[in-house]
Amino acid sequence: MEEIERKFLVRELPNLDEAKRTEVRQGYITHPTDAVEMRLRQKNATFVMTFKSGEGTVRTEREAEITQAQFETFWPETEGRRVEKIRWSAALPDGLIFELDVFEGALAGLVLVEVEFDTLAAAEAFQPPHWFGADVTDDKRYKNKNMAVNGLPD
Amino acid sequence: MEEIERKFLVRELPNLDEAKRTEVRQGYITHPTDAVEMRLRQKNATFVMTFKSGEGTVRTEREAEITQAQFETFWPETEGRRVEKIRWSAALPDGLIFELDVFEGALAGLVLVEVEFDTLAAAEAFQPPHWFGADVTDDKRYKNKNMAVNGLPD
Repeated sequence: MEEIERKFLVRELPNLDEAKRTEVRQGYITHPTDAVEMRLRQKNATFVMTFKSGEGTVRTEREAEITQAQFETFWPETEGRRVEKIRWSAALPDGLIFELDVFEGALAGLVLVEVEFDTLAAAEAFQPPHWFGADVTDDKRYKNKNMAVNGLPD
Repeated sequence: MEEIERKFLVRELPNLDEAKRTEVRQGYITHPTDAVEMRLRQKNATFVMTFKSGEGTVRTEREAEITQAQFETFWPETEGRRVEKIRWSAALPDGLIFELDVFEGALAGLVLVEVEFDTLAAAEAFQPPHWFGADVTDDKRYKNKNMAVNGLPD
């Protein structure tokens, strides 16, 4: 299941009065060089543990919802490998949904916005609103996992 | 919390009519060379996930009880790094408790027995019953973690 989305820096915050607010925390229990990946993720009151291994075509992913107590047991072990953010979701004037991520913790100061599309053609035709900044869709430094480990891009 | 125990091979199975039977499965989600260790363990109907990191004096251990469904979600990822056994616990004539492990799966054929002591002096004074075999207390090949990864000792 491939997602078609574009990711941008943010020039100025839009009006978020109508936006849905989600608290997102994710962190890696394993280290980047480990053979497998164990990730914790919180979205508001939902907590998930995810296993990932492999790269390219042979990948495995397993996911279990966990309790907050289980999450809190292992969360301290993600220190130094975390992404924490408030996600604001709302519709653009043309109806497309944007997800604006205001980062906290070690990544405080960074704001990113993502838009998801149904087709590649729609993604390519997209005209960003004036408050969007540079397109960083293909900039791997802005991937959650890389920022969790490497911190803010320069 | 240090445990004082001795571990032996088993020359012949004792009478286990009075022994308590526990089904034990444990497996490692992470690989031996990873920076951290995530272990799954089942004892009958109790399921636990354990995090460990570090060696020697700076060690961290965190443990959470998990549901059977959560256990089963991640258990397939321990393949090749498992210890499965039936543990039989009972008292020796002198009142000391033994735990006899009859291994299954990749380690089938192996039987070990452990006895725990309150003091080092008691451990040293212990006279093994006739059905005990060689003392393998200090033989690292018989550690659960090593057998999980390396299989049966020669």
